[in-house]
Amino acid sequence: MTHRSAADLDLADPLAAHRDLFVGTETPLVYLDGNSLGRPLRATGERLRSFVEEEWAGRLIRGWDERWMDLPEVLGDAIGAQILGASTGQTIVGDSTTVLLYKLMRAAVALRPGRTEIVMDRDNFPTDRYVADGIARECGLTLRWIDVDTAAGVTAEQLSEVVGEQTALVSLSHVAYRSAWIADAGALTRIAHDVGALVLWDLSHSAGSVPMALDDWDVDLAVGCTYKYLNGGPGSPAFAFVAERLLDDVVQPIQGWLGAADPFLMGPTYHPADGIRRILSGTPPVVGMLALQDMLQLLSRVGMDAVRDKSIGLTTYAVDRAAELLPEVALASPAEASLRGGHVTFTHPLMREVTAALWERDVIPDYRDPHGLRLGLSPLSTSYDEVERGLQAVREVLDSVG
Amino acid sequence: MTHRSAADLDLADPLAAHRDLFVGTETPLVYLDGNSLGRPLRATGERLRSFVEEEWAGRLIRGWDERWMDLPEVLGDAIGAQILGASTGQTIVGDSTTVLLYKLMRAAVALRPGRTEIVMDRDNFPTDRYVADGIARECGLTLRWIDVDTAAGVTAEQLSEVVGEQTALVSLSHVAYRSAWIADAGALTRIAHDVGALVLWDLSHSAGSVPMALDDWDVDLAVGCTYKYLNGGPGSPAFAFVAERLLDDVVQPIQGWLGAADPFLMGPTYHPADGIRRILSGTPPVVGMLALQDMLQLLSRVGMDAVRDKSIGLTTYAVDRAAELLPEVALASPAEASLRGGHVTFTHPLMREVTAALWERDVIPDYRDPHGLRLGLSPLSTSYDEVERGLQAVREVLDSVG
Repeated sequence: MTHRSAADLDLADPLAAHRDLFVGTETPLVYLDGNSLGRPLRATGERLRSFVEEEWAGRLIRGWDERWMDLPEVLGDAIGAQILGASTGQTIVGDSTTVLLYKLMRAAVALRPGRTEIVMDRDNFPTDRYVADGIARECGLTLRWIDVDTAAGVTAEQLSEVVGEQTALVSLSHVAYRSAWIADAGALTRIAHDVGALVLWDLSHSAGSVPMALDDWDVDLAVGCTYKYLNGGPGSPAFAFVAERLLDDVVQPIQGWLGAADPFLMGPTYHPADGIRRILSGTPPVVGMLALQDMLQLLSRVGMDAVRDKSIGLTTYAVDRAAELLPEVALASPAEASLRGGHVTFTHPLMREVTAALWERDVIPDYRDPHGLRLGLSPLSTSYDEVERGLQAVREVLDSVG
Repeated sequence: MTHRSAADLDLADPLAAHRDLFVGTETPLVYLDGNSLGRPLRATGERLRSFVEEEWAGRLIRGWDERWMDLPEVLGDAIGAQILGASTGQTIVGDSTTVLLYKLMRAAVALRPGRTEIVMDRDNFPTDRYVADGIARECGLTLRWIDVDTAAGVTAEQLSEVVGEQTALVSLSHVAYRSAWIADAGALTRIAHDVGALVLWDLSHSAGSVPMALDDWDVDLAVGCTYKYLNGGPGSPAFAFVAERLLDDVVQPIQGWLGAADPFLMGPTYHPADGIRRILSGTPPVVGMLALQDMLQLLSRVGMDAVRDKSIGLTTYAVDRAAELLPEVALASPAEASLRGGHVTFTHPLMREVTAALWERDVIPDYRDPHGLRLGLSPLSTSYDEVERGLQAVREVLDSVG
């Protein structure tokens, strides 16, 4: 197989210059874990400093009325429009992904009284499985599991076999956290709807790397993470999506003052806010939401289609080059680029040791059981040369640990 | 009544110099809402900038292993030791106050199966009441309400009358958000324990201004806020306390990966972590936790007893001076300093309009129904002169709107 070299690909990359906008890309570090924690943009440090010294210190409590109270919706709408293919008023930022999963799964179960099952695949992300397990127990439901292949996800045939009039909710990941398999979200949503079930998509591993069309797919509910491809910083808050047609009826269990119709009325009784704000509970995590804004602005300028082209270029290079350079490893991600998200996983019995040895050399992928070396190639901050240097390091480490 | 002047009191204040450590105290702004949002320390802007550019950008995903994963416990233990009178391993930082209230109230109800009531007073903070209302409905319990006077809180006699073997949980605020009444937490906890009930204290309005002794009081559960007197910034994460003797048995409903015994095992089944980490659900909000560290360091140097002395000085000055200067307003807080937390509320039929007019003049208290002007006097960042200028402004505004 012949390739263009990494250097040639970087030269031809229309997005190559964006890499310089991220802190640390000038160092020798090879960072292949942008799907776990994205690098900060150079604008972000100063954004946080000036927020503290000017906006927080200067506006103090007035900041809530002037700007902060609306940030969950303003950032939610930006994520909806630029990342999710969702029209305004359906997306909101706040809490962790796990807490939002809990709220929306509980809301879904309440919207389908009398139905007895939640459907999920065994390879869904752990927190999704754990939350669903707890809810199934507390609400007296059964979890119905779908088994999936290591390098794949739930197919239309598999889902059709298990759903029925007993199904309250189907809860799946859009991009699988190990294999990077992209689920056919539109088709799977239709299959669930055909039996009257709701669908909750976890977008954590696709938001900011794979274009989405939640409105076109007729998605009911979704959650996603902002510290991966949206570069919100360690532990930045998550987002939740609720389809407009459900907003009047959706009821989530954590009745807090900031999800109330008029938080400062402070009256005796909780009345949920109209619209997506009813998903909120406590005070919006303003400081934690700040960094996210820089990446949303950048993604808005670049556009998700161009980001996806670069992402496919990077993962295709990694797959092709590993086939040459690392013949003893197996690809545990889809070989077909259109089925593969922004990361690639390779397996080998020694990958746990390989990952530890790579970290010693400032080459930073991550490891996922069983035996998986996972390369998360954040499209705007990763160069082809970085991927090449990473794979060369894997070769050297495999030679030395093998 | 004769007073020492504000200028004399500032000259004699052993903590006066600390005011210069906060951003904005050099401006003419009169800030009397430190109990809603504390001012940032001058060190905080640079702390956030350097975190982004050095720690986040430099350590990237390695930061989790090196420091970030432990921050919820490290900061929790610092809050426990310095603020709560709680020994290590019982306090953790994460989520919003509302989400933590939900987790701990659900946990409490599960620890008292068969009991049918949650006891709460009608003047408890709205989010506490709303969360309890939702839980009562979902768990089939009854909320038993205690009525309290405007300038007071729940007494031992009142609590004794309503608790019994039907009581699962008593949920109260240590310092009342309107009146600043300090509950006798030790005595009230004993009354609940005598009938076998658990107690959950909301410490949001006392943490960082009123010394506490959770271990000595034998408290079961507590939550509190970090953006008021702990100066964590808008929407900074809350803390939860669970007494060590309950930690093996406490089960909270939001089963997330970061509350699991081994988050990165990512196995098929959720097993809660040993100890206080089982209260966690999602990824710790690292960026949102950073600012809090500066105030914890400062409070550690000053000590809570000295902070409380200054706080009593400020609120006593406000009460005494208002009696002279504002004869038409009523005190809606305890007149006795030992019963009063860090804020003072004055009522008058025109206080809503007064508050709006004060904001126009860069004098920033807040307003709470009914007719309450609330002055939150953060002890280390507020001077007696600032209180004097604020009360003079209230006098002028009352004259002009009256």
